[in-house]
Amino acid sequence: MDSQPAGEWPEAAETEKLAPLAPGSTIGIFGGGQLGRMLALAAAPLGLKCHIFCPDEASPAFDVAATKTVAAYDDRQAQQNFAAAIDVATYEFENIDVAAIDAVSALVPVRPGGRSLTVSQDRLTEKTYLTGAGVPVTPFVAVEGRDDLERAIAELGTPLVLKTRRFGYDGKGQVIVGGEAEVPAALAAIDGAPAIAEQFVAFEREISVIAVRGVSGDAVTYDVSDNVHRDHILHTSSVPALISPEVASAAQQIALTIADSLGHVGALGVEFFVAAGGHLIVNEIAPRVHNSGHWTLDACPVSQFENHIRAVAGWPLMPADRYCDAVMTNLIGDEFNHWQTFAGQANIRFQAYGKADVRAGRKMGHVTRLLPRSVS
Amino acid sequence: MDSQPAGEWPEAAETEKLAPLAPGSTIGIFGGGQLGRMLALAAAPLGLKCHIFCPDEASPAFDVAATKTVAAYDDRQAQQNFAAAIDVATYEFENIDVAAIDAVSALVPVRPGGRSLTVSQDRLTEKTYLTGAGVPVTPFVAVEGRDDLERAIAELGTPLVLKTRRFGYDGKGQVIVGGEAEVPAALAAIDGAPAIAEQFVAFEREISVIAVRGVSGDAVTYDVSDNVHRDHILHTSSVPALISPEVASAAQQIALTIADSLGHVGALGVEFFVAAGGHLIVNEIAPRVHNSGHWTLDACPVSQFENHIRAVAGWPLMPADRYCDAVMTNLIGDEFNHWQTFAGQANIRFQAYGKADVRAGRKMGHVTRLLPRSVS
Repeated sequence: MDSQPAGEWPEAAETEKLAPLAPGSTIGIFGGGQLGRMLALAAAPLGLKCHIFCPDEASPAFDVAATKTVAAYDDRQAQQNFAAAIDVATYEFENIDVAAIDAVSALVPVRPGGRSLTVSQDRLTEKTYLTGAGVPVTPFVAVEGRDDLERAIAELGTPLVLKTRRFGYDGKGQVIVGGEAEVPAALAAIDGAPAIAEQFVAFEREISVIAVRGVSGDAVTYDVSDNVHRDHILHTSSVPALISPEVASAAQQIALTIADSLGHVGALGVEFFVAAGGHLIVNEIAPRVHNSGHWTLDACPVSQFENHIRAVAGWPLMPADRYCDAVMTNLIGDEFNHWQTFAGQANIRFQAYGKADVRAGRKMGHVTRLLPRSVS
Repeated sequence: MDSQPAGEWPEAAETEKLAPLAPGSTIGIFGGGQLGRMLALAAAPLGLKCHIFCPDEASPAFDVAATKTVAAYDDRQAQQNFAAAIDVATYEFENIDVAAIDAVSALVPVRPGGRSLTVSQDRLTEKTYLTGAGVPVTPFVAVEGRDDLERAIAELGTPLVLKTRRFGYDGKGQVIVGGEAEVPAALAAIDGAPAIAEQFVAFEREISVIAVRGVSGDAVTYDVSDNVHRDHILHTSSVPALISPEVASAAQQIALTIADSLGHVGALGVEFFVAAGGHLIVNEIAPRVHNSGHWTLDACPVSQFENHIRAVAGWPLMPADRYCDAVMTNLIGDEFNHWQTFAGQANIRFQAYGKADVRAGRKMGHVTRLLPRSVS
């Protein structure tokens, strides 16, 4: 894996690893949700087949992929069969067992590599790593129990945000702590799991950057998006973000710095808070294609999905150009029932994820409104 | 089927037939080549599943579709199982047995309908029909044997082009006749099949128009492309075509006239010769997505493939807008071996069809060069 010291690889193998996969090759993808599905749809026009590994028989990505493995992520035999059937592996989500990645990487390259995965799986590791890389993050304190949390209150002030170190997404595994009196309830809310306390940032806006880095270290960044969350789930991403060119450029540069530092191969989503005066703070990173980059499907010649596939397959990346402005809105739960309203409007691109059941809080699809380009 | 008198359908069924298919519905596609593949890739983002019917186990479309049927086109049981498993049917090529279409249309709508298929399967029927619809075509004579061909030479002059009425594509089943001495050899070359003799048109250029017509009769036309053939196979389509706006508009209007006349639902490719003075002559029509419309994948917000799927699913069509100029070039046979040259250039969009074997004359993929928009 990429995080291993280069010296442990013989030089010939390294060169072979860097050769682009020819059309007809197979990319294995851990995870069969909408991101895996959109990756498979981006791989096909390049002549690359996809093999999806997912425990859920009704995975949306199965409908558009050449091969599927329905198995638990910790099924060792299934992992080995999967690795033997593919030419390279990637993943659509970072909360995957590192042992599964290790088993596959013994046979084929896994991109992004182990450092990207290890760093982004754990909020404490991530913030510690980013701080070490010179990237500005929210002030934080590791929390193993009551003493730590009380110390965090003293150091960071209140309110603060207590988050589990692992397996959090869409606001799951986090709670706001208003003061010392709320400490027992907060720890109970996260079941006493290893956690991190983060200073509450009075941000002016949330933005994100999708960077994509190739095997040879070349990289592109898409334009910065303005993100609005509702109930901790991304609601809207708008491009261009209403920030100065200087702040936009700084955010893109930070994303590239992180990607380089990780030796990352593939898409990397970096979420920022923009505080007063345009001060940037990295909120979190995702070593994969990102919801806030879905607008690239319709507003760009080449989407985050195709560039991720290109990186994973060792192909040259394409420029992250943009045809037009865009506002992407997620369709969550029964918002999707209004699909006919969205699917028939001329300036709206509609996307459904092929999920059988509409459930509350479930991302069912998205729409991207395309607008004339306002900023070059 | 659409060509049946409306009176034979109960009114309720007709209304139901026109309701748009909800995401999660299944479109059956006869044919699993690159057109079926690109249709399936366009259906997925709309949440529509595809079921591909094709006798070839290695069909490229199978890799991106939810379900496949590997069976001969005349396999009655397979047709019935297919029809029972889908919500609507379409096809990627017109040389399909009408009996197969009839079997399926007894259970679900087939779009485009029977008139489009019947007319376009047979060159003589097609030219006769178009003439009756007031559409200019090459002067022609039906040829059943030697007497007819000699009469054709007398009426049309030489050289003329002798074409089989059925199953011709990419120049197969056609021969140029230079004079009476060549009559026996020409008839032998087409195995004495029922044929049509067409006057040899001294055209200045070949152009085509992709029209798409919806279930409610709404229709769009993409911009006209300039087409260049090599060895009877499409080599390049360029947009915009180097013709006057008046000729372009006339070509689009003729395509719409044909689509309306056929009661066509879906994409319709219309190929024209442009003779001296901008005089337009329809060469042939194809009741499906068309090779000369592949540039719409990369140069338009909505491609011919998505609009065809929208029509077939009873959805509203999207405008046939174009972001930029484009030159699409087919990759035929071993031209595809140079894929790395094309796949790494920033202004070139590369597409591979997922065919396992490179064979001479086989369409393996295409590239579309995107250029700044020259004409609004």
